[in-house]
Amino acid sequence: MAVYTDITELELGALLKEYDVGDLLSYKGIAEGSENSNYMLHTSKAAFILTLYERRVERSDLPFFLGLMEHLAQNGVNCPLPVHRRDGVVVSEIAERPAALITFLEGMWLRKPAPRHCREVGKAMAGMHLAGQGFELTRPNALTVGDWRPLWEKAKPRADEVEPGLMSEVEADLAALTEGWPQDLPTGIIHADLFPDNVFFLGDEVSGIIDFYFACNDLLAYDIATCLNAWCFEADGSYNLTKGTALLEGYQSVRPLEQAEIAALPLLARGSALRFMLTRLYDWLTIPDGALVNKRDPMEYVRRLRFHRQISSPSEYGIGIK
Amino acid sequence: MAVYTDITELELGALLKEYDVGDLLSYKGIAEGSENSNYMLHTSKAAFILTLYERRVERSDLPFFLGLMEHLAQNGVNCPLPVHRRDGVVVSEIAERPAALITFLEGMWLRKPAPRHCREVGKAMAGMHLAGQGFELTRPNALTVGDWRPLWEKAKPRADEVEPGLMSEVEADLAALTEGWPQDLPTGIIHADLFPDNVFFLGDEVSGIIDFYFACNDLLAYDIATCLNAWCFEADGSYNLTKGTALLEGYQSVRPLEQAEIAALPLLARGSALRFMLTRLYDWLTIPDGALVNKRDPMEYVRRLRFHRQISSPSEYGIGIK
Repeated sequence: MAVYTDITELELGALLKEYDVGDLLSYKGIAEGSENSNYMLHTSKAAFILTLYERRVERSDLPFFLGLMEHLAQNGVNCPLPVHRRDGVVVSEIAERPAALITFLEGMWLRKPAPRHCREVGKAMAGMHLAGQGFELTRPNALTVGDWRPLWEKAKPRADEVEPGLMSEVEADLAALTEGWPQDLPTGIIHADLFPDNVFFLGDEVSGIIDFYFACNDLLAYDIATCLNAWCFEADGSYNLTKGTALLEGYQSVRPLEQAEIAALPLLARGSALRFMLTRLYDWLTIPDGALVNKRDPMEYVRRLRFHRQISSPSEYGIGIK
Repeated sequence: MAVYTDITELELGALLKEYDVGDLLSYKGIAEGSENSNYMLHTSKAAFILTLYERRVERSDLPFFLGLMEHLAQNGVNCPLPVHRRDGVVVSEIAERPAALITFLEGMWLRKPAPRHCREVGKAMAGMHLAGQGFELTRPNALTVGDWRPLWEKAKPRADEVEPGLMSEVEADLAALTEGWPQDLPTGIIHADLFPDNVFFLGDEVSGIIDFYFACNDLLAYDIATCLNAWCFEADGSYNLTKGTALLEGYQSVRPLEQAEIAALPLLARGSALRFMLTRLYDWLTIPDGALVNKRDPMEYVRRLRFHRQISSPSEYGIGIK
């Protein structure tokens, strides 16, 4: 749930004069995105989303994020298209925050994705990876293996409050991942947060990918590892092999994986689980109860971590290695 | 801010099969209404609002509220029209809550209404009062003079926490209002919560009135008194006579007031200020800090109360008495 910043119809009307989008008919704060304030707009021409970037997004990253969306949309990916103002600019300002107007995508995110949806998200992700080639800007991943240690140091002293023994358990993971993290896999633009709420479906087809505010240059297979965590586990913490197989087959039908990528999947999946566990843990320990932010249980990702730790072969995810 | 109850695309898809509204394209939880969960829907035919009624709305009141919206819409009031299901019913159920699908109204509520908007809301309110005649169902006002005492008794012991002396101050108001409350004024259907966030404008015209979930049968002039409180005070607590005059002139251009109604305005405005002060005070004292509900400052309405208490003539609101 979001919408942190209210805007007046006068501010918004003045802002929209900078764009060729018709007359404002309505705007509603929507409960989507956990980092920014989002408004759904109807104008006399179409529907749009206005995003106000709150403190967690660096203003200097906006040209990358918005440029990427434009690049991907022009290369066949269904994602929101940033609208250029009459003066060509895409980053505006409203209520003392940077803001962007983007096209509205129809579609619903799936609260309970089925294997056939995992196949489609695999395909869409691979398509996005291919379309990302040729995008001229770059952005390092701010939450990859080297960044976990500083985050962990902030949460570590209180980790055992969440579960006794968690501190030493995570220390061991961090050591193993830092030691073994793969270096020579194919890289490119990854979404880095491709959870179900960031993928819209119409029927059984992917109608759009949204929320590129963690996108960066990193190992392509790391995006797959994140999707295995986000799409292929059940509510009880069990791994659904049918979903994993479908997601990986879907991906490979568009971009076949190299053997080294397949071999690295257990470590990448473990690393991705650690990354999301760490940010959840940090939020869990630092955000006051009752704040207008969803605090997600870090233990969900501790259980993912434990699962990946005992994987002996990528075939357990549903993909063969030669 | 609202959206308390999440719904899945499967639940929603199943629900919409009961209606002739086309195929679901998207749905977003919106940050509107403080009592219910609201979703904005796009279907292949149009835009709609789906409201899930949370605990503060009595299920047995829904036929009144929804029937009233239909009656008003059929009699020329711009308000949402409840959509009938194929079986004729308007109250559905989703996520274990009663729910209704209503048409979407374009328009924006005004964060800073000007006098010309006050005039328009006066006209629209009078039009609604006239259109409400002939509606066959009735609902007593659950928050009128006789209901204030029990509400006050719950808040009274801690009232001085909000401001020292508030307890005896409000006791005196309650006694005076109970004693002098008018009995013989014209009655009819009133909105009873016609605050700026419940009135949409397109340009300078009222495009819609929403949120009829406090509507009831009561003194028509009491609705005007509530609007004086809600529309005609500035952020610093001062009464804007220009706005009040405009609102009252707008109203009278559609439905001229009787002399007795004009004479009663100071008492009605004081009563309405007490009513909103009491519910705010109760929420202020009972809702935990940080809950996903806007807690409004009761002192804003204590200041209104003090203003109305010292009024000696309705002309101070901007309306002459003969």
